[in-house]
Amino acid sequence: MTDISASIRKAKAESRRLASLTTETKDRALEAMAAALESRKDEVMEANARDIRENPDVQGALLKRLMLNDDKISAMVAGIRSVKGLADSVGETMSALEMDDGLTLYQVRCPIGMIGVIFESRPEVVPQILSLCIKSGNGVVFKGGREALHSNRCIFGILMDAAKGIIPTDAFVILETREDVDSILGLTDCIDLLIPRGSNAFVRYIQTHTAIPVLGHSSGICHVYVDRTADIGMAVNVSLDSKIQYPAACNAVENILVHSDAAKAFLPEMYRVFRENGVEVRCDASAKRLIPEAEDASEEDWDTEYNDMIVSVKVVGSIDEAIDFINTHGSHHTDAIITEDRSAMVRFYNAVDSADVFVNASTRFSDGFRFGKGAEIGISTNKIHSRGPVGMEGLMIYKYVILGGGQVVRDYSGKGARQFTHVPVDRILEMR
Amino acid sequence: MTDISASIRKAKAESRRLASLTTETKDRALEAMAAALESRKDEVMEANARDIRENPDVQGALLKRLMLNDDKISAMVAGIRSVKGLADSVGETMSALEMDDGLTLYQVRCPIGMIGVIFESRPEVVPQILSLCIKSGNGVVFKGGREALHSNRCIFGILMDAAKGIIPTDAFVILETREDVDSILGLTDCIDLLIPRGSNAFVRYIQTHTAIPVLGHSSGICHVYVDRTADIGMAVNVSLDSKIQYPAACNAVENILVHSDAAKAFLPEMYRVFRENGVEVRCDASAKRLIPEAEDASEEDWDTEYNDMIVSVKVVGSIDEAIDFINTHGSHHTDAIITEDRSAMVRFYNAVDSADVFVNASTRFSDGFRFGKGAEIGISTNKIHSRGPVGMEGLMIYKYVILGGGQVVRDYSGKGARQFTHVPVDRILEMR
Repeated sequence: MTDISASIRKAKAESRRLASLTTETKDRALEAMAAALESRKDEVMEANARDIRENPDVQGALLKRLMLNDDKISAMVAGIRSVKGLADSVGETMSALEMDDGLTLYQVRCPIGMIGVIFESRPEVVPQILSLCIKSGNGVVFKGGREALHSNRCIFGILMDAAKGIIPTDAFVILETREDVDSILGLTDCIDLLIPRGSNAFVRYIQTHTAIPVLGHSSGICHVYVDRTADIGMAVNVSLDSKIQYPAACNAVENILVHSDAAKAFLPEMYRVFRENGVEVRCDASAKRLIPEAEDASEEDWDTEYNDMIVSVKVVGSIDEAIDFINTHGSHHTDAIITEDRSAMVRFYNAVDSADVFVNASTRFSDGFRFGKGAEIGISTNKIHSRGPVGMEGLMIYKYVILGGGQVVRDYSGKGARQFTHVPVDRILEMR
Repeated sequence: MTDISASIRKAKAESRRLASLTTETKDRALEAMAAALESRKDEVMEANARDIRENPDVQGALLKRLMLNDDKISAMVAGIRSVKGLADSVGETMSALEMDDGLTLYQVRCPIGMIGVIFESRPEVVPQILSLCIKSGNGVVFKGGREALHSNRCIFGILMDAAKGIIPTDAFVILETREDVDSILGLTDCIDLLIPRGSNAFVRYIQTHTAIPVLGHSSGICHVYVDRTADIGMAVNVSLDSKIQYPAACNAVENILVHSDAAKAFLPEMYRVFRENGVEVRCDASAKRLIPEAEDASEEDWDTEYNDMIVSVKVVGSIDEAIDFINTHGSHHTDAIITEDRSAMVRFYNAVDSADVFVNASTRFSDGFRFGKGAEIGISTNKIHSRGPVGMEGLMIYKYVILGGGQVVRDYSGKGARQFTHVPVDRILEMR
């Protein structure tokens, strides 16, 4: 515990030097990292084989996530180079305000500080988050799962060897498995933001066991609502894509709601197509009357993220009932309406309290790459800071800088006080 | 506990209706509230007198905060009207991106949802935060101290009476004292953001006992660093203002650091002026050699927020020592450098990890009104969401809305996939 805290504290102090690195320096480090990972991939494969041998209990989906291959390593290398290509907004003047003659207030974008990354299996997390943090000037402490110990250590080592001498690498730490996740969760004064990567249960555990802000989401119960004016062909097609394009994804649909006026046209056709594609359909009583062959939905179904080829279907009497249902049973992640009615779509995206609200488009579109962010640190259902697919902007905050000439507040107080001018100005704060 | 949770849950559901109110409607409610408070101020004064009579143990500074008078009520009324005058950015399109022909992604500003306000004494908190939350479309649950029970209840009642029929007032709740603060702190799924208002210890308790995000700061250990090239007259003047202009404020200076090259010119003069103004000066050994009449500082002094006419002084050997000292002992709140050296100022505002970093200006300038925000919900030392003096923008987040024409992700995946265009466009999402 004391050891962890000391190494992270040192990394945090070092991380403050990252804020003033030039873009050129950071990009040089990223290129060196990409090249090193490319040329030393045999070492990574060996370390990964050792993890696989030492963890015979890791099987199935978990093994698939742990196991590396040429394609996965090439994707890591390409990922680092794509972050290198992203714009660097550290030090950017977001706004400037003249408070008085010779007294100017600047709001300047800066790194958050020290990011904690706690993850399971996937060794790709290391190059992906590390490169985003370097570009945005943040220090990182990684804590991976025991099952990927050698892979993570090897990748991290290669990247640090390459970056050493270019950027202050003491700002980056990887914790080995003997230390406890719980001891990290208490380091409120060292770690500014936690990014968990793993199962829903894993993320939920972290969210509820720390006072450090956590960026992410612990569940993805997404909805498609088929409104009374929906184009039925579109409704079936979009619902199907939302379900089957990648059923294990957080943005796959779990509950389909349909307006009673559209149910008769939509449900039989939807049922036919979903069954053809191997999806199990669970229905409430009203839907069941139109598609008697379907399974019954229980109350639990409305709050279940299947991550599987199953969908629940419910008939609602109005768009307001649909909105209430989504706000109650959903994860505030991604919800879509299918409608031809302008006022219904406006009502829906105003009132649905979710990070992503789509009109006539698949829920599967909620993703950092598809949103044009280049890279994603996660999808957030938080209500503050960053919401929805989060790119590098989620690793940034701002500070206020005043440049003055010796002004004191006494002169702006009481009788005969000087007045603030408060005029927005087009000035840039020089950062070097 | 169940009761609280039910009333807040209902308020949260109602609060979703606030997001789509027009500016005109919100402003009409605010004007009605201001007028009602003005015309019913006798009731407020009576309720306040009852609080004072029923709490004879409340004395000194606390009593001063609890006790209302004509001026304080007029300031509340003026405060509501000034919020009415603020721009309404709810529903504003922050950015728009064409993902493909007929598939557009909008980032739209929206309210956070449900704000929890836990406060001690000052009944002004009710009209101040309520008006900001109404303008930004957020619901609120207030929990005031027992000592201000009647005052808070009366003010809240008058404001709700006035707003009823104009906006959905069920989105606003005041909890009475029999319920426990701790039961609110556990309502992670009902309350999206907590704003505590009270003593440092009170804020720290809340920050460390909830998984709900907390906006604020629990301490204000601010620094003035007098660099080797400082203008000595300016250094003395700015330090003095930072200390005495309002010593109980969070942005008052507690530690003054001086470069060894400037110590001989600065310290004796600073000591003379500070003593003249009744400030106790506590020194480290090096400073003491130059001002032997001063008190001795102990190690504890560097981490103490005096909120009083006391200041600690330390001589440092370099600007880097000053920066490290500030990053270690400060509250990341407000720190200033006095210097004539451009490279020193740049180094300082890059490396000092504080919400507000000032060059040649008093630390007392860090304040929502002085920053031109019109109204302040607090000063935040958080590293995410909002930092420094926070205005209405701290009560807002965004959602992503896609308007499509039935697009599915399948068409953008695999071989022969359609490519995203990802072109920023100048389009506004219609919100009604």
